Amino acid sequence: MFSPGPAFVRPFALRTSVSIKCPTASFRTPTFHMRPLTIDTLNPAFDKVQYAVRGELAIKAEVLRDKLKEPNHGLPFDKVISSNIGNPQQKGLDQPPITFTRQVAALMEWPELAKLAPHAFPKDVIERANELTAEIGSIGAYSHSQGVPFIRKNVAKFIEERDGYPSNPNHIFLTGGASAGVSLMINMLISSPKAGFLIPIPQYPLYTASLAQHQGRPIPYYLDEYSDWSTSVESIEAAIEKAHSEGVEPKGLVIINPGNPTGALLDETTQEQLVQLCEKHSLVLMADEVYQNNLHKAKTHPFTSFKKVVSKLQSPIPLVSFHSISKGVSGECGRRGGYFECTNFSEEVVALIYKMVSVGLCPPLAGQIGVDSMVRPPKPGQESYELWKKETDTIHVALALRTHTMAERLNALPGVSCVDSPGALYLYPQIKLSKKAQEAAEAAGKVPDAFYALALLDQTGICVVPGSGFGQKEGEWHYRLTCLCPGVDEYVGKLEKFHFEWVTKYGEA
Amino acid sequence: MFSPGPAFVRPFALRTSVSIKCPTASFRTPTFHMRPLTIDTLNPAFDKVQYAVRGELAIKAEVLRDKLKEPNHGLPFDKVISSNIGNPQQKGLDQPPITFTRQVAALMEWPELAKLAPHAFPKDVIERANELTAEIGSIGAYSHSQGVPFIRKNVAKFIEERDGYPSNPNHIFLTGGASAGVSLMINMLISSPKAGFLIPIPQYPLYTASLAQHQGRPIPYYLDEYSDWSTSVESIEAAIEKAHSEGVEPKGLVIINPGNPTGALLDETTQEQLVQLCEKHSLVLMADEVYQNNLHKAKTHPFTSFKKVVSKLQSPIPLVSFHSISKGVSGECGRRGGYFECTNFSEEVVALIYKMVSVGLCPPLAGQIGVDSMVRPPKPGQESYELWKKETDTIHVALALRTHTMAERLNALPGVSCVDSPGALYLYPQIKLSKKAQEAAEAAGKVPDAFYALALLDQTGICVVPGSGFGQKEGEWHYRLTCLCPGVDEYVGKLEKFHFEWVTKYGEA
Repeated sequence: MFSPGPAFVRPFALRTSVSIKCPTASFRTPTFHMRPLTIDTLNPAFDKVQYAVRGELAIKAEVLRDKLKEPNHGLPFDKVISSNIGNPQQKGLDQPPITFTRQVAALMEWPELAKLAPHAFPKDVIERANELTAEIGSIGAYSHSQGVPFIRKNVAKFIEERDGYPSNPNHIFLTGGASAGVSLMINMLISSPKAGFLIPIPQYPLYTASLAQHQGRPIPYYLDEYSDWSTSVESIEAAIEKAHSEGVEPKGLVIINPGNPTGALLDETTQEQLVQLCEKHSLVLMADEVYQNNLHKAKTHPFTSFKKVVSKLQSPIPLVSFHSISKGVSGECGRRGGYFECTNFSEEVVALIYKMVSVGLCPPLAGQIGVDSMVRPPKPGQESYELWKKETDTIHVALALRTHTMAERLNALPGVSCVDSPGALYLYPQIKLSKKAQEAAEAAGKVPDAFYALALLDQTGICVVPGSGFGQKEGEWHYRLTCLCPGVDEYVGKLEKFHFEWVTKYGEA
Repeated sequence: MFSPGPAFVRPFALRTSVSIKCPTASFRTPTFHMRPLTIDTLNPAFDKVQYAVRGELAIKAEVLRDKLKEPNHGLPFDKVISSNIGNPQQKGLDQPPITFTRQVAALMEWPELAKLAPHAFPKDVIERANELTAEIGSIGAYSHSQGVPFIRKNVAKFIEERDGYPSNPNHIFLTGGASAGVSLMINMLISSPKAGFLIPIPQYPLYTASLAQHQGRPIPYYLDEYSDWSTSVESIEAAIEKAHSEGVEPKGLVIINPGNPTGALLDETTQEQLVQLCEKHSLVLMADEVYQNNLHKAKTHPFTSFKKVVSKLQSPIPLVSFHSISKGVSGECGRRGGYFECTNFSEEVVALIYKMVSVGLCPPLAGQIGVDSMVRPPKPGQESYELWKKETDTIHVALALRTHTMAERLNALPGVSCVDSPGALYLYPQIKLSKKAQEAAEAAGKVPDAFYALALLDQTGICVVPGSGFGQKEGEWHYRLTCLCPGVDEYVGKLEKFHFEWVTKYGEA
């Protein structure tokens, strides 16, 4: 059984004079009875993967964005705001890239420019591009599979200066964004279908998605919303005990710090306890530290890397720490750049990881040189420094202000409570939903927070991710939204108006 | 049991004044007896993965390259030639990038350049960059997970013009090079540990590596070296029968056309037979067509896409065809760009693939715009056309000439026979090895062709890949080398000298 495939649907108007044959009849009768390709003939793990950040809401947002292009679209808004994903440079948000990063990249793309337009580039940019070209050659060539050795040395130096402890460039892997590394590490550590990872709830759904794909078991532990989304050793110990009782073997502990979606920051005492917990249970610590440079209250909520804590304690636990150019002030999501550092990994295991990444040849060079710019920004006295300082300060200040303002205004809404995130790019408000609202959701076949988020999208064009995509306690509802929108008044104004109408319609909880 | 980890080894001289604490003692005694991370505690599939293109030989080549930097290195050569990998723009080979591609990319990196240096760029380049920017916005933003819709439309148009049949941009996925797509498709189609893929022998080892990682079974079928590495339906039928008898279920058929490492091109009659074979056995056809633009004898050995054959036959077989910017005349390996097109895939399965790629967010934008330049090169009459034509013609002519010259000279060596490849970037000579050579290899603990390749590397600095990395018939030995080296006389001269010395030492077979 099959129907004429989509290859025979003319997808768009051809702007060429070439002759395209479009069969109007269905397929010829095949000689044999072919079994068609259906979901149930595929890897069953794929069907189980869930990734809400680009799920139902995001797909609907794309449809609405297309609809807005129609003259009489009839929608009650004139733009879609994609607050579902931390994508600072996307259209409509338009966080400007750091000029230094782009100037270096442009010169690497076309080195001739240094001669053709010498006055367009600051001196330190030309020097930097020359230095990188001497090491890399063309950015159109595959690099070392682990990443350009020179750039890995620069990353190691950045880590050493950050933490005050040594870092080995041979144990650093440059990646196409942090996600690629996370997926690989989970794939490597899941040694059997009974192996699992401790995952914070709420979590960034990359972790559960990768576990589903690689057929490992998520072992949820809960963060405490009522103490600013803190992490407690006790809740992890309880999760480990429960896992053992269910025959699941914990292999690793995932910590996201600063938190996603919570924005919480760990204090050093908790970090030390977590390292000791990993020692006790022989766990690999996976430290997702991609928001380490998004700190809105750095004095009261500083960032300390797990590498530093592990080094200070002289702990033998295997640690993988992830960083990325997609977040921070860089926001270079489209380059796909990041790295992970392995601490306390044997040479044998590092060689195994090298072999695996070599099958994919190498991470994108545009991402690798983006990592280099992130770990080696201009220094005081260099020609690019003043502009770099101004650009990065502006982004830091704006993000901190927006986060605080949004949290304050959301907290003023009936049935909404929201931790004023000290880090990352998000808020994760809790919303109380009335019995009437929950019944309406059930009637629509939706989880209540997804029902709320869909209504928000339909009425305002604002796309957020329902808390059910990140995980939450039974009977609680949340959503995650980014703090990236430039016009915060308009943005929060729409959220407020929607919420009041919702409460009028469904009542307070 | 653990030893002090590498985090405590000072990896390189620090060029900073920051204080780095270097514990000299070993770890403190942990409170608990932690199990260390060893290979046998990891996913057993990882240990089984083999990828010779960046294996033992390539790793040794890197060591030798570093050694050459020492003043008295004592090596009998002054440079390492990496003929193990099709990486045209690497240092030492230095195939120049296509100027048009890089000019567009430089403008996308830093759009300000159009104002700062308007005379540096041809008019059509500025127009192209403006057009792409209008569609994409910043290349620092995540795009649609499937790739920028506008670029997918351009890919579909390229396919339609190439084949004369419709192509649906919604069934095209842009990828970070072809490898990422191949790995995903294999992962998706391996529905159980008994599921397998028909793999040509010799093959590009990405296929066996991906099958090992995703725990599928390779089902080898043999290409016929004595008829220019032709593919026969009979040999595939025999492999299918053998698979069934061993309880292995064939899910897909991998065809590499033009061949890697063989360079062979399929004729349309064989392609039709292969499509019918897929119908008969309900196989998904995976067509690796990344060398479609590397044709050295296009008149006698033209390229026909499987998409065209499937469309012409109106066949219902599911087809995935892969293309890449890393090969052809583009050689943009470091950008990581490519695409795959799904034909006869249901919307449900396409949605499943979309979900999976969305977890990785999006392919690198530098790769995506590289794909756009590949499928939309300058046209006659446009300002960039003449240079583009000259650059691409030069690469085509040089590659065809080098391939032919190298094949001719290799064929003149005692015990060496080599098909004069009509396509791709490689030659795959067969080498007869004497009993004495085989015994010496065994004494050294090496496979005979790896033993030959290691000696070649040690004596000449030329790094090739032994045939055992691609697969070959029992008792036959080969190696693969690229035809990319600019100084063909020096390159082949070294190979010849080495081979004569080898024959002197070990005798003819």
